[in-house]
Amino acid sequence: MLSKVLEPDSIAVIGASSNREKWGYRILDNIIAGGYLREVYPVNPNEDEVLGMRCYSSVLDLPRRVDLGIIAVPAEIVPTVLEECGRIGVRGVVIVSAGFGEVGNTELEDRVRDIARDYEMRMIGPNTFGFINTQLHLNASIIPQMPGEGGISFVTQSGTFGLALVDWAASQQMGLHLVVGVGNKADVDDSDILEHLSADQHTKTIMMYIEGIEQGRRFIDVASRIGKPVIALKTGRSQAGSKAALSHTGSLAGTDRIYDGAFKQAGIIRARTLEELFDSALALSISPPAGGGIGIVSNGGGAAILAADLCEDLGLHLPDLSEDTIRILKSVLPAIATPANPLDTAGDGSYEMFKAVTDIMLSDRSINALLVIYVHAEMVDPCLPAEAVIDVREGCDKPVVTSWIGGTGIGAAVKLLEEHRIPNYPLPERAVVALNNLVRYKRILQKR
Amino acid sequence: MLSKVLEPDSIAVIGASSNREKWGYRILDNIIAGGYLREVYPVNPNEDEVLGMRCYSSVLDLPRRVDLGIIAVPAEIVPTVLEECGRIGVRGVVIVSAGFGEVGNTELEDRVRDIARDYEMRMIGPNTFGFINTQLHLNASIIPQMPGEGGISFVTQSGTFGLALVDWAASQQMGLHLVVGVGNKADVDDSDILEHLSADQHTKTIMMYIEGIEQGRRFIDVASRIGKPVIALKTGRSQAGSKAALSHTGSLAGTDRIYDGAFKQAGIIRARTLEELFDSALALSISPPAGGGIGIVSNGGGAAILAADLCEDLGLHLPDLSEDTIRILKSVLPAIATPANPLDTAGDGSYEMFKAVTDIMLSDRSINALLVIYVHAEMVDPCLPAEAVIDVREGCDKPVVTSWIGGTGIGAAVKLLEEHRIPNYPLPERAVVALNNLVRYKRILQKR
Repeated sequence: MLSKVLEPDSIAVIGASSNREKWGYRILDNIIAGGYLREVYPVNPNEDEVLGMRCYSSVLDLPRRVDLGIIAVPAEIVPTVLEECGRIGVRGVVIVSAGFGEVGNTELEDRVRDIARDYEMRMIGPNTFGFINTQLHLNASIIPQMPGEGGISFVTQSGTFGLALVDWAASQQMGLHLVVGVGNKADVDDSDILEHLSADQHTKTIMMYIEGIEQGRRFIDVASRIGKPVIALKTGRSQAGSKAALSHTGSLAGTDRIYDGAFKQAGIIRARTLEELFDSALALSISPPAGGGIGIVSNGGGAAILAADLCEDLGLHLPDLSEDTIRILKSVLPAIATPANPLDTAGDGSYEMFKAVTDIMLSDRSINALLVIYVHAEMVDPCLPAEAVIDVREGCDKPVVTSWIGGTGIGAAVKLLEEHRIPNYPLPERAVVALNNLVRYKRILQKR
Repeated sequence: MLSKVLEPDSIAVIGASSNREKWGYRILDNIIAGGYLREVYPVNPNEDEVLGMRCYSSVLDLPRRVDLGIIAVPAEIVPTVLEECGRIGVRGVVIVSAGFGEVGNTELEDRVRDIARDYEMRMIGPNTFGFINTQLHLNASIIPQMPGEGGISFVTQSGTFGLALVDWAASQQMGLHLVVGVGNKADVDDSDILEHLSADQHTKTIMMYIEGIEQGRRFIDVASRIGKPVIALKTGRSQAGSKAALSHTGSLAGTDRIYDGAFKQAGIIRARTLEELFDSALALSISPPAGGGIGIVSNGGGAAILAADLCEDLGLHLPDLSEDTIRILKSVLPAIATPANPLDTAGDGSYEMFKAVTDIMLSDRSINALLVIYVHAEMVDPCLPAEAVIDVREGCDKPVVTSWIGGTGIGAAVKLLEEHRIPNYPLPERAVVALNNLVRYKRILQKR
């Protein structure tokens, strides 16, 4: 059961260390710092005490059977400690240690997997950064910070990108649930994690970073049954990139077109960059629009034009407004503004104007989703138009994303939007790309 | 002479105000706060003193003739004050006031232009945010902050994007020289500013935001004679966007393909997003590579693969390394790393490793430019690999760009790179896009 690994009641950190340079120190320190409230036991034959906790010389000496063993010992010792875990009935292990398939040592990796399977332990890794479960306040990883709680879960084959995402999420108040590094995937692979996340009530949106997948058929089967949005960045597309992927985690990147087809079949949205992956996961955490009609509102003409261009590039439809909408807009807009989509309020970024135009645009039947762009010009409190969007969105079931532009001066407004779970982006083009993926998700749902 | 406008010895702020809500307050306040050391005179018949300075009721009362008049009075009064400027021999004016061509009031705009021409005054605007000249510490604009000094100048038809850039530049320690809002371009247009920047010794790189250009032939002539990189974002590409552009600044956006051709002929690099525009301007501030061979170095495999993929997408060439390079790399790399391009140091982000591999890669004859990606993992001081890149780059004439990934923990390292004028990006994909535009600039130079 993967849930015993990712939601453990008790943990042994095997290779726990007082040496700050060691992963075994870092992981135990992160578990303590994160505020995990259940049982945790350091294990290391060379230490009596680690981080103020009694250290056991072997898992065989532990006062109880533990659910999860996190293993951070040299590769050659892994089989021994894994055997010991098996003997005391550990439910699953996370092997942080490196030096297996990724350096050509497939024999050792096979041996380790066989031991895990003999004892019916699920095994994540080897060569993984570990995982984070925010709901349990459990940072069982080498990632130095704990993200806030939320509905996005992230499965990654790269430790780097695990680090990058958690950092990015923290800076955006983006709430995460699980962050899992699958490493070499000797036992547990992407499909296993997807199955777990599919049933996991805390996960609403799934983000993946993939270098290569071996059991493609199973992956498609599992992914296509998930009733949640899945967005994935699959690298190793290029010749140079796929050669590099082979030496990085030993995974065969495969022909890229095969992945394109597989993702399509599985209903997985494919991102091309980290920025698209992260930004889109944020948008995919709100409900998709009923159709593809996009409205754009801005107090800055340039930003509205840029957003309209990019909508057209991506095939997003900006419908003409109904005569009713145009008539009502005319009654609230300044005389110099034109009632159209994209809508430019000709500089007026007040609460009243943003409330009125946001409301009117969202009431147009052809508009299914709205992008609101606010450009800060120092004369208005940028929290006021943000509050207008928040207020209008309350009584409306159409998705709204925003782009508040203006750097340091708009910090409080951005925080307000984030707190109200409105996906907000520092540049309008990023909002358009993310919104496009929310529309793509709607199309995927329609095909199912 | 546009230089008397953009490098004035004396300024009158006409419409200067004690009311913080007025542009006339904001601009005078910004001029004072910016530290402009030459003469500045507030002018307003309804005020005796503004911001602690004596206020003159008309430019006719000024103790001396001024070079520049900045006009922030209601549109209908502009002709009168402009006449007065002409009579005392003001060299040029910046008209911040709105309410002209952009709201259909072309008659008033024509009248204002005629007055300026009668008196041989150059006129920027109307409907502009003003301009910034960092070298003179002159913030003659409504932009609330003064960017640092540097070699990038920015010409923009959108006030919004002027604000956004200055903010972005400040957050990145990106040095700017001139930031000019051209507004409605009733007299001075993009071509005039380009001519000025072409001769301006402080400007090394030119960034433009364009919604529409009227005198295309002249623009191409001027742009194609500039011996500096020019990168431009031209919006209004889409149908919806070009309709919006028409109502925003009254400029005819024109068929987009015409602009594509014109930019190509003029040797202007075209950006598609604000992020590409800003990021690429940073890369274009260093010397272009001698050829198109790109090397990639990283301590994180995933980031190297992602960067390699995007290089291939953009048509950037990742050459195979020479046998010599491979041999030397083998002698310094950990046993588990593969000497190849992209190069993954298998996690080693030490000063010694980054110095060695950066040096070796840059010595390979087929590598013309290098992208160094560092992924922070909390065990190493991220300043050390940054210092390695800085040290190696000192004695090398090949361009180097970097991507330090890891958020808050790497702040000091990023600052170090920025201080040494190494273009650095928070995501590897952004570094690749910027580097691609540096390679495009090299090709433009080769065609000339």
